[in-house]
Amino acid sequence: MTENGEWAPSSGLLKDYQDPGTPPGTLRPADGETGPARVQLVSYDAADLDVREVDEAAALDGLRGDGRIHWVHVIGLADVALVEHLGKTFGLHPLALEDVLTLGQRPKAEEFDETLFCILQHLLYRREGLDRVQLSIFVGTDFVVTFQPRGDDVLAPIRDRIVKGRARLRQKGACYLFYAILDLVVDAAFPALESLGDHLDEIEAGILESPDRNDVEALQGVRRELLVLRQVLWPQREVMGRFAREEHDLMPQEVRIYFRDCYDHAVQALEVSENFREMASGLLDIYLTSLSHRLNDVMKVLTIISTVFMPLSFLAGVYGMNFDRGQPLNMPELGWRYGYLGFWGVSILGIVTMLWLFRRKEWL
Amino acid sequence: MTENGEWAPSSGLLKDYQDPGTPPGTLRPADGETGPARVQLVSYDAADLDVREVDEAAALDGLRGDGRIHWVHVIGLADVALVEHLGKTFGLHPLALEDVLTLGQRPKAEEFDETLFCILQHLLYRREGLDRVQLSIFVGTDFVVTFQPRGDDVLAPIRDRIVKGRARLRQKGACYLFYAILDLVVDAAFPALESLGDHLDEIEAGILESPDRNDVEALQGVRRELLVLRQVLWPQREVMGRFAREEHDLMPQEVRIYFRDCYDHAVQALEVSENFREMASGLLDIYLTSLSHRLNDVMKVLTIISTVFMPLSFLAGVYGMNFDRGQPLNMPELGWRYGYLGFWGVSILGIVTMLWLFRRKEWL
Amino acid sequence: MTENGEWAPSSGLLKDYQDPGTPPGTLRPADGETGPARVQLVSYDAADLDVREVDEAAALDGLRGDGRIHWVHVIGLADVALVEHLGKTFGLHPLALEDVLTLGQRPKAEEFDETLFCILQHLLYRREGLDRVQLSIFVGTDFVVTFQPRGDDVLAPIRDRIVKGRARLRQKGACYLFYAILDLVVDAAFPALESLGDHLDEIEAGILESPDRNDVEALQGVRRELLVLRQVLWPQREVMGRFAREEHDLMPQEVRIYFRDCYDHAVQALEVSENFREMASGLLDIYLTSLSHRLNDVMKVLTIISTVFMPLSFLAGVYGMNFDRGQPLNMPELGWRYGYLGFWGVSILGIVTMLWLFRRKEWL
Amino acid sequence: MTENGEWAPSSGLLKDYQDPGTPPGTLRPADGETGPARVQLVSYDAADLDVREVDEAAALDGLRGDGRIHWVHVIGLADVALVEHLGKTFGLHPLALEDVLTLGQRPKAEEFDETLFCILQHLLYRREGLDRVQLSIFVGTDFVVTFQPRGDDVLAPIRDRIVKGRARLRQKGACYLFYAILDLVVDAAFPALESLGDHLDEIEAGILESPDRNDVEALQGVRRELLVLRQVLWPQREVMGRFAREEHDLMPQEVRIYFRDCYDHAVQALEVSENFREMASGLLDIYLTSLSHRLNDVMKVLTIISTVFMPLSFLAGVYGMNFDRGQPLNMPELGWRYGYLGFWGVSILGIVTMLWLFRRKEWL
Amino acid sequence: MTENGEWAPSSGLLKDYQDPGTPPGTLRPADGETGPARVQLVSYDAADLDVREVDEAAALDGLRGDGRIHWVHVIGLADVALVEHLGKTFGLHPLALEDVLTLGQRPKAEEFDETLFCILQHLLYRREGLDRVQLSIFVGTDFVVTFQPRGDDVLAPIRDRIVKGRARLRQKGACYLFYAILDLVVDAAFPALESLGDHLDEIEAGILESPDRNDVEALQGVRRELLVLRQVLWPQREVMGRFAREEHDLMPQEVRIYFRDCYDHAVQALEVSENFREMASGLLDIYLTSLSHRLNDVMKVLTIISTVFMPLSFLAGVYGMNFDRGQPLNMPELGWRYGYLGFWGVSILGIVTMLWLFRRKEWL
Repeated sequence: MTENGEWAPSSGLLKDYQDPGTPPGTLRPADGETGPARVQLVSYDAADLDVREVDEAAALDGLRGDGRIHWVHVIGLADVALVEHLGKTFGLHPLALEDVLTLGQRPKAEEFDETLFCILQHLLYRREGLDRVQLSIFVGTDFVVTFQPRGDDVLAPIRDRIVKGRARLRQKGACYLFYAILDLVVDAAFPALESLGDHLDEIEAGILESPDRNDVEALQGVRRELLVLRQVLWPQREVMGRFAREEHDLMPQEVRIYFRDCYDHAVQALEVSENFREMASGLLDIYLTSLSHRLNDVMKVLTIISTVFMPLSFLAGVYGMNFDRGQPLNMPELGWRYGYLGFWGVSILGIVTMLWLFRRKEWL
Repeated sequence: MTENGEWAPSSGLLKDYQDPGTPPGTLRPADGETGPARVQLVSYDAADLDVREVDEAAALDGLRGDGRIHWVHVIGLADVALVEHLGKTFGLHPLALEDVLTLGQRPKAEEFDETLFCILQHLLYRREGLDRVQLSIFVGTDFVVTFQPRGDDVLAPIRDRIVKGRARLRQKGACYLFYAILDLVVDAAFPALESLGDHLDEIEAGILESPDRNDVEALQGVRRELLVLRQVLWPQREVMGRFAREEHDLMPQEVRIYFRDCYDHAVQALEVSENFREMASGLLDIYLTSLSHRLNDVMKVLTIISTVFMPLSFLAGVYGMNFDRGQPLNMPELGWRYGYLGFWGVSILGIVTMLWLFRRKEWL
Repeated sequence: MTENGEWAPSSGLLKDYQDPGTPPGTLRPADGETGPARVQLVSYDAADLDVREVDEAAALDGLRGDGRIHWVHVIGLADVALVEHLGKTFGLHPLALEDVLTLGQRPKAEEFDETLFCILQHLLYRREGLDRVQLSIFVGTDFVVTFQPRGDDVLAPIRDRIVKGRARLRQKGACYLFYAILDLVVDAAFPALESLGDHLDEIEAGILESPDRNDVEALQGVRRELLVLRQVLWPQREVMGRFAREEHDLMPQEVRIYFRDCYDHAVQALEVSENFREMASGLLDIYLTSLSHRLNDVMKVLTIISTVFMPLSFLAGVYGMNFDRGQPLNMPELGWRYGYLGFWGVSILGIVTMLWLFRRKEWL
Repeated sequence: MTENGEWAPSSGLLKDYQDPGTPPGTLRPADGETGPARVQLVSYDAADLDVREVDEAAALDGLRGDGRIHWVHVIGLADVALVEHLGKTFGLHPLALEDVLTLGQRPKAEEFDETLFCILQHLLYRREGLDRVQLSIFVGTDFVVTFQPRGDDVLAPIRDRIVKGRARLRQKGACYLFYAILDLVVDAAFPALESLGDHLDEIEAGILESPDRNDVEALQGVRRELLVLRQVLWPQREVMGRFAREEHDLMPQEVRIYFRDCYDHAVQALEVSENFREMASGLLDIYLTSLSHRLNDVMKVLTIISTVFMPLSFLAGVYGMNFDRGQPLNMPELGWRYGYLGFWGVSILGIVTMLWLFRRKEWL
Repeated sequence: MTENGEWAPSSGLLKDYQDPGTPPGTLRPADGETGPARVQLVSYDAADLDVREVDEAAALDGLRGDGRIHWVHVIGLADVALVEHLGKTFGLHPLALEDVLTLGQRPKAEEFDETLFCILQHLLYRREGLDRVQLSIFVGTDFVVTFQPRGDDVLAPIRDRIVKGRARLRQKGACYLFYAILDLVVDAAFPALESLGDHLDEIEAGILESPDRNDVEALQGVRRELLVLRQVLWPQREVMGRFAREEHDLMPQEVRIYFRDCYDHAVQALEVSENFREMASGLLDIYLTSLSHRLNDVMKVLTIISTVFMPLSFLAGVYGMNFDRGQPLNMPELGWRYGYLGFWGVSILGIVTMLWLFRRKEWL
């Protein structure tokens, strides 16, 4: 859609979609993804840890059942065969896999018999604006399978924590790993929000100093990013709320408190983004009043100049008339000794009076 | 209502209606529909397939009970006798048939003892704007009956999939066919939304470059289409939500997951349309600030010109006065050797000073 | 309130009310109603039908219990004695009767032990604008009592259907007659909405062609009518929703489907009116941008004229100065052979340049 | 807060409050109240009635238990000892008594073991604007205790009805008296709303005729009163809703219907006030378009004058130039016989053409 | 974030946060906090009271179990060791402790097995604007632990009440102390709201007298503070609502009524802040209409001046023309005896007529 660099601000709000009528569960490479996927496998329990990059899908067979927790992280969404293989190995539903390969998904959670599935959007605020990385997560009793599009590994901090042997993450089950990932994604909203807030502050400072068109366009850009943000944060909050509330075999009671914490953060992120929307619309109000003020100022200058010089020009015009001086009543002023000085006196008096009047009206 | 081509933007929001007081269940040809209907019959099970066009309503009698699933698709809503015949054959409720023959219906779902009934609006974004095709669907244990107004067969992709023998569609029951139709209708919103988004992007580009009245009218057109869209997508989401949540004998548990997927898509389509509404109203804001900016610019030009030339004109007027040169104090400047040059000097100095002042005020 | 023909647009939003502190159940003639009431009695079952106008309230005694359904329709709300007599005969609650005699009621439904009571507003869009006829309905096992203020009988179409012997209405019980009345009232909103929509379309066409103040006032009128409409349609939808959902001895299960249909229509009417509200506020936006455009246009004309003629006037003023031609440097241009032609040349060149500049700036 | 007559429009929205950290249940005279309270006692049953003014709190001891219903109405909120005495006599909760003595309370209802407590705001629309009288009500099996600040007795109509022996009020229990008071308070909103509506109508008429600044300030005043109204009517509706829905020992089933009626009125009052808010904001829109229209009109006058006279002034300036008539090409027009008449001819032709053009553009 | 005094209005809306991916329960000194914490211990029962400042965390060990209630109040959030020690001593959850050390938290409540935990924001309206002090509270059967950042002790009034031996606070359990703290925090919103209201009133008075840019900026400041307020008051209301509704072992039934009172106050504070938001946006409307009025006034002055002097200047220009007086038809007026006087007569007549016209149009 935006491949050819055209102006397409609306595209951030639309998900990719397959042609209507396509049978459900049809797997195709995700839009814009190419090449093979990178697969990272982490197998661990409290005592043991094995981290490696897997080259062949077959290497993932027969992992389960050794008592360890296996986390498969797939980077790149173009290798349909791999996705299908994972689907068979871990018993993932075809409809869910179709969602994995469709970018721009609304965050959602789905419960299957033995797995939980959810899609989230990991937010990044890069120099060129807000970016989203779609993260799909499957959780079973002893495995977690995650997918993201090509690019930097957004889950690297989690793997680092496992490797560094933080007690809790290694000792608790797959569900706690799942929580750690959700926590990472939810908290990623805060730096993005902070950057957006800084941007809003800059725009506000700019508007208060000297409002110009760039400010409106920048503001409109921020508003669009806030729309995208809301489209991500609302359903993300719902997903967290479901995990915090609903019971599921995979989630022991003691882990529930962590999901509640996660939910609180998701609520807070959403609230901040809603308040930023109000701030942005308040900025537009300020901007419009600034424009009105400037128009008023411009018009005052014009009016002052006109009010001062129009009567004077008329007066000069009068003494430039050619009435026949032979007639005694015709323009006798022209013959007076102090006529010209008098003219200037009247003119300067007029100017001063006008300016004094304008000052009293607070136009100056 | 819009038959005679008059300006009638509100008509897209109103359904057709019968005169108040008409007894319920009264069948009449739908507004604007004429001529006989085309009836397409698909009878299939996993092994067997029979696709044909039916000319006489009587050919539909006695179909049921052979273990196959029968899908009757009627194109054209003017043949009341046919509709009544189908009603008797498949046991369809008269109130539902009245709805089938009334265009502009709000999407809705209704449960009868042995059939499910729902009305949807299939969205199409044609060159001349957003269009809706009303689709009415009845589902029973072994049959699906669908109705649409005259025009292209919107369900052709489904029939193609049955003919091509996609395993799942042929092996599962009437309910899965029903799902396939809902999925088609829900997903049809995305290309329509994409076209609307492109349209919004064009308008935004136009406004940022040079705002003119056509942009506002185009924007107003898009807003009206978004209103129509919302009128379709909100209840469509409700309908999908009911199928995803509520239990019904016709819907086995295993098919429920597909309806949930359908519901997710309906939610996403609705969300995108709501965000487009916000984008559209943001565009209006930008447009208004653009107008204000232009007014400011125009006024600045006027003020600069006036401020520069009014004092100069006054000065020229002064030296055009006819004060009597006989009096020594009257306009001695006129007799000076460098008087005229001095006048130009003062004038040019004045212009330069003014322009410098305006530049400092950033009016230039 | 509006009796003396004063400007009172707010009165459409207020109900009549009795003085605070009046004991509940106090019956008084309704505001603005006078004279005796007309009472129409229809007694029917599937086989038998009796339609007559009743002159004396006593004629209504002893009707019940003959197995037929009796429908008493009272036109005129000033005959308190009649209302009280009906209350005793059919066991109607005094609070409900007080509501019957108070015009401008919010639509509502109330369940008593053996009767259902509801108040609706029948909408009419007459030439002079939107009008409401308050309809009060009591339903018992074998009777329906309805009240409306003086004027045309709004329930005439129902009586006609009974007289013409439409099978269903004659064969089913009082509840079906009740449904037929609700259906009539709900559907009466659609012609009213259509008229309002036509009105909006006219205003829009007017604004797009040449916006003037009448358009705003017409728009404001429509917005006020939409407020009134909403005040009627929201609670009417609630009332229909209650009948469609809640169980009541008077409503057999098989009739419930009809009330659901009624509810769907009520929802649709409400939705259309809400969308009209959005259209109306969109029209105001268009109107305001039109005004801005026209101001811009006016200012451009002024600026072009000023920018072209101010410098030229200055130039003409210069050559009207009276510098002493005796001095060689003073205004030698005046003595040149082609001085005057040169002046015109410069002037015309200046005009052409200016116009060319304005055209480039797209001001022309 | 507003004692010293300062500009304090926000104070109507704030309740009085005690210093944060004050122990709950601390009783102090209400803000702005002084002097002793008046206490009116009404003791009645169906047969017997005793109405008197009580001077000493002790006279209220030992009233209960004689089978009659006792209604104590206290006017004036400065006599803390009296309030405490009543609290002990009737078993009223200290927190509730604290609320009684704090003006500006949000309407609320509270259930204690043997008493119901509620606070309402009785609305009055006086000449100087909307006023609220805080009414606190305690109900027990055989007593009602009510409090209001100093001023006219707002419950006088109820006492009159008891004295006049209206059957129902005298025969039914304390709960019916409670209902009568609620009904009075809820219905008091309607005359206030009617006055506000009349005020809105006046403003609208004023704006349509000739909009000026007073209209905006009046409109802003009405909007603030509508805010205050909403702050009262929303929670009042909630309170009525609770009484209409919830079961309580003090409320027999047969009285419930009366509370439902009360609730309906509260809903209607709230709805009307919300619609008035919309009307008020619609008026602001009209006002702004009026201002724009007038600016347009002013600018048109200016532009017409400038467009007509600037070219003419230029022409007059041209023939005021002093080019040397000795040169044959210099201003030969000045020597023509009909030169001057020709000048006027051109001028008048120019004026007429311009006016014709402006008329065609509909600027005149 | 705002340490270096930069313009950062958005920062008030964001909470501090740890880097995404930080393990949950990681304790760090709160942002901007340094130095050791002050710890105040109050141990009391109805008979006995012990108030002291604790220097070593170890002094808190072994307190529990002596039948008294212990309240530990920590001022300063940089001493991680102390916080951890308290966590172990009183059994506080690590996630909750992490929240304690993170400033800018959304108010929330959390139930653990044997403790209740909640975070509130104590509002203060200082000279430089609205300020928040984050208060974290843990309650157990016999203890209360509270935390606040460095600064004035916001809970001093509570300690004073305990010391002064107010019966109720000393006799009731930890839960009542908890309530007293909540009550203090909730009521602290009212003085803050009153200050904000005063500020709004000042701005309104300023705008009505003479609107200038400072008013808009002040208004924008108030709106931002109202946003912050809402971000605090909404969840605070939820927290109070939970305590008022939900049952918990720590809360005896008799204390519940106090929490309901607290909830009512929280609701009222929120409502007032929402109404202030409406008032603020109403002020912006007034401001904009004021600007429009002033522009209108300025333009009228300009138009009046132009309309009066442009025709007169033209006339003066006419009689300054140099048509050859030798031709009899050329400007005979110049030779008339009363020509000049006539010119002035016409001029003055013109001025008077114009002014009379403008007065009639109510432009003067």
